[in-house]
Amino acid sequence: METYEVRAIGVVRSALRELEDAPRQADEGAPEAELVFDQQFAAALEGIKAGDAIELLTWLHQADRDTLQTRPRGDANRPMTGVFATRSPDRPNPIGLHTVTVLEAAPGTLRVSGLEAIDGTPVIDVKISLGSPDVR
Amino acid sequence: METYEVRAIGVVRSALRELEDAPRQADEGAPEAELVFDQQFAAALEGIKAGDAIELLTWLHQADRDTLQTRPRGDANRPMTGVFATRSPDRPNPIGLHTVTVLEAAPGTLRVSGLEAIDGTPVIDVKISLGSPDVR
Repeated sequence: METYEVRAIGVVRSALRELEDAPRQADEGAPEAELVFDQQFAAALEGIKAGDAIELLTWLHQADRDTLQTRPRGDANRPMTGVFATRSPDRPNPIGLHTVTVLEAAPGTLRVSGLEAIDGTPVIDVKISLGSPDVR
Repeated sequence: METYEVRAIGVVRSALRELEDAPRQADEGAPEAELVFDQQFAAALEGIKAGDAIELLTWLHQADRDTLQTRPRGDANRPMTGVFATRSPDRPNPIGLHTVTVLEAAPGTLRVSGLEAIDGTPVIDVKISLGSPDVR
C-alpha cells in the first residue's frame, strides 16, 4: 500500500504531561489547552475566532501502530474489538480526532476547550466544524 | 517540524470518477461508496455493523499542499480565508474527514452512505463516532 508524509504543523501545550493522567475523552474532564502553530502556517488560521467549533487532528505519537484489536476502554469485561470500531489511540495510523471550541485566537496560537491530548502532541490539521448547508 | 508516515489502509470505490463531479460535502448529493481495506487490516474492522456512524479519514491525494488561504466554496464574493477555517481539501496535510453511516459490513469491506470522495481516494483511518458517555 502507498505511504504519505504528514508534517507536524504545530504542537499541543497542556497541563497534561503523561498519558496516564489523560482522560479517555474530552468530555471526561479534559483541561483547556493551547495549540501553538509553526510560523509558516499562521496565515492558514485566519478567520478562526473565539466561539468557533473546530475539528482538531493530532498525531498520537505514543500510540502502538501494530494493534488491530483491543478491549474498549481497557475494560477486561468487554470483548476484543477491531480498533476501527473504537476510539483507541492504538491503530495503524494514530490520528487523534478532537472536536473542541476555540476560546481565544491569536496569531499562530489557539486556546481551546477540553482536550485530552497530552503536552507535546503534534498537531497535523484543523478544520472548521461543518455548519448547516446555508452557512458554509 | 517533524514528519510522520501515514499508510493507506484501503481505498474508496465510488461512481464519482473526477473531482469536478464530486459535491463539496456529503449532504450535497454524494453517492454511496464502498471502502475496500487491505487484507492485513480486516481484523481491525471487527465490531463495525450496519447502522453504525463512523468517522472516515481519507488522504485527499489530488489536493494542493501549498495552499494556505482560499475563498470558501470557490466563491469569488467571499474573502480570502485561512484553509484551517474552511473544509477545503487544499491544506498542508490533505486529510479528508467524513461522517458516514455504514450500510453493509462484510469482511474487509464497508458500504457507506453519501461520500464525496472520488474513486481511488486512499483510506487512512476509521473511528466509531462518539456516542454519549454511557455507551462508550
